[in-house]
Amino acid sequence: MNYHSRSPAELRDIRDDLRLKYRDLLAAGLTLDITRGKPAPEQLDLSNELLHLPGDDFRAPGGTDCRNYGGVNGLPELREVFAPLFGIAPENLIAEGNSSLDLMHDLTVFGLLHGPLGADRPWSAGPIKFLCPVPGYDRHFAITESYGIEMIPVPMRPDGPDVEVCAELVARDPSIKGMWLVPTYSNPSGATVSDEVARALLSMPAADDFRIYWDNAYAVHTLVDAPPEPLRVVEMAAEAGHPDRVYAFGSTSKISFAGAGVAFFGASPANLDWFRRYLSVKTIGPDKVNQLRHLRFFPDTESVRAHMARHRAILAPKFQAVLDILDDRLAGSKIASWTRPEGGYFISIDVLDGTAARTVALAKDAGIALTAAGATFPYRRDPNDENIRIAPSFPGVDELRIAMDGFATCALLAATESMLGYEA
Amino acid sequence: MNYHSRSPAELRDIRDDLRLKYRDLLAAGLTLDITRGKPAPEQLDLSNELLHLPGDDFRAPGGTDCRNYGGVNGLPELREVFAPLFGIAPENLIAEGNSSLDLMHDLTVFGLLHGPLGADRPWSAGPIKFLCPVPGYDRHFAITESYGIEMIPVPMRPDGPDVEVCAELVARDPSIKGMWLVPTYSNPSGATVSDEVARALLSMPAADDFRIYWDNAYAVHTLVDAPPEPLRVVEMAAEAGHPDRVYAFGSTSKISFAGAGVAFFGASPANLDWFRRYLSVKTIGPDKVNQLRHLRFFPDTESVRAHMARHRAILAPKFQAVLDILDDRLAGSKIASWTRPEGGYFISIDVLDGTAARTVALAKDAGIALTAAGATFPYRRDPNDENIRIAPSFPGVDELRIAMDGFATCALLAATESMLGYEA
Repeated sequence: MNYHSRSPAELRDIRDDLRLKYRDLLAAGLTLDITRGKPAPEQLDLSNELLHLPGDDFRAPGGTDCRNYGGVNGLPELREVFAPLFGIAPENLIAEGNSSLDLMHDLTVFGLLHGPLGADRPWSAGPIKFLCPVPGYDRHFAITESYGIEMIPVPMRPDGPDVEVCAELVARDPSIKGMWLVPTYSNPSGATVSDEVARALLSMPAADDFRIYWDNAYAVHTLVDAPPEPLRVVEMAAEAGHPDRVYAFGSTSKISFAGAGVAFFGASPANLDWFRRYLSVKTIGPDKVNQLRHLRFFPDTESVRAHMARHRAILAPKFQAVLDILDDRLAGSKIASWTRPEGGYFISIDVLDGTAARTVALAKDAGIALTAAGATFPYRRDPNDENIRIAPSFPGVDELRIAMDGFATCALLAATESMLGYEA
Repeated sequence: MNYHSRSPAELRDIRDDLRLKYRDLLAAGLTLDITRGKPAPEQLDLSNELLHLPGDDFRAPGGTDCRNYGGVNGLPELREVFAPLFGIAPENLIAEGNSSLDLMHDLTVFGLLHGPLGADRPWSAGPIKFLCPVPGYDRHFAITESYGIEMIPVPMRPDGPDVEVCAELVARDPSIKGMWLVPTYSNPSGATVSDEVARALLSMPAADDFRIYWDNAYAVHTLVDAPPEPLRVVEMAAEAGHPDRVYAFGSTSKISFAGAGVAFFGASPANLDWFRRYLSVKTIGPDKVNQLRHLRFFPDTESVRAHMARHRAILAPKFQAVLDILDDRLAGSKIASWTRPEGGYFISIDVLDGTAARTVALAKDAGIALTAAGATFPYRRDPNDENIRIAPSFPGVDELRIAMDGFATCALLAATESMLGYEA
């Protein structure tokens, strides 16, 4: 029942039927929220042992009293546990506070006020731009928007950003100084950057102070048996002749506790020296007790992988429930398409052109909170008004089914309305 | 045996005797460190219960699941416990990460890149200046130096900064946008700002975007029975007609664990709104599990005061040991003066003009690490080369006595050398 091959009369019948469905939805008085990529309580329960750790022994294996000041690099033993998961050598990886976003912000601020390594002047000395693969992560875009950095959308493909577009843009515009990127199970499309695309991004001619913000937020957040090996991006940058091009990030926020985890930063030795110089001005050091807590809970790399398998057992049925309902309710109509991610926290849906905002508004009135339409684009401007990000992690499966069924009704209703030219 | 009333021959005898003492000191092969205000392990032991907290119950009293994202203001219950200690209403106080220095840095960066509330342009749009009471805290000065903010030293008196000098400077120079200040048991002099001085600083005519960084790092760190009541500085600023003039800071770093505590920021509602707007761009929220941990350990304000009494029992004998040795070894010579702080973490010593660097160098060669001479001044420039900051907290009393006795020998030797014109 492809909507596009229907006559206006048939579409009207479908629409009227959907209006009845929508009336029922309104009457149900739901309050459901699938806006943000928050772990569910059951996922957080997996790490409850942390609530009692580190226990009496406050010393790191190397002897450091974690209760006292110092150690801007974070605990070396914790960096060793996580380094293989991010594909970064432990000596190129530092462990910091509870927020990788905070690290991305600091790097941007230091770039603006001091200039990155290799810059001939601070970024704030003139207008600068960042490339933004779209759809992308709204909190990335919020940082660049906040500081008046112009954002240029570039298409995100199943294997990463469109390299030809990126290369052409940076080659002709040296004021392009940065690029946001979620390389593994991207937010929101679930795409994973291929080795080939990564090497092209790392080797393309660009300004000396051009930086790729490689936000590996979902490095180990797989939903399948054979996840991709992490790209050794810091080494690959060096091999590509641009060792300082990449800033890599990771975090345990969606591994242990959201907001009470440990964030990581990986980069070339020269970048790390540069960063530490300014980082040491703003802090005496990270919370080493929390790092020790994590080290006791995750004594080795394999323990993190085993832990992520337990997350997967909770998350996979939720993703499946969303996909089942999308398949069931939307596939035939051909008015929408969506991703089938093998990991991460999101499903990205493209509804009929020009109906994303209307779909979200209809859902909102029915008590189903969706991420705002446009949120996945710089300046919240989705040129086609089509993309909607679904976050299946937080609600229970039953709630999620109800929310997604309601969502499908809203998307279909918005589509028929649009196709009928919004006639009464 | 006032050195100033000695004949050259007598001074030579004294110096030669000190040289023998110094030779013995070198021979002793010490390795002692009294550079930084680090809590001693015995002080950290007082909070070891935190190593097992929060325990199974991860919910704040208000019901918040502290393991998940959100809540940029921090736990309201924790803000209520600490608010009275900082003299700030709980609604004007927010609880954040592990570092108040980080908050001061962020406020400075937001001022530079966005402009504070009431500014007609970002601070970075032109050269700006900060007032720096001296001697002061080197990490404050490092932030302003890092961003090229010109630092103007102003004298620190026993009741706070010299208000007349401050008022005159800010009245005639609108590019003075900020002022560092440790209002209680100041670093390093131990001075506490009086109500009168505070009101004068808060009411003096200054630029609309002039801010006092009120770093109340030692608000409850008393060594005496009757500590001063905290000044209600945010209210006082409003009373003075400049509600947004003050940024207040506090921290549990020297209450619970150094570097694994909770930092606080207090300000007017308008300032808090302004700050949160930009703070929310860089972080989803602070580590609420750590805040809950602290709330379980410090269930009420009185429990913090009781805890600080236990710190005092450890610290007071150390301060006394330092003062005893200074009295014993240096008082008669009249070549040095020092503070007798009633709280905080430091004793500030002025040695003979022009001999601070020499004293520190002599001590270093003898294995006694002192804070670098000049560290308590902007740009590390002590115009009189006289101030040395002593941090008695970390070493044991016996070690401290040995270190201070060695220090006294170095200070006296440097003084006699100087008075004798460095003759051989």
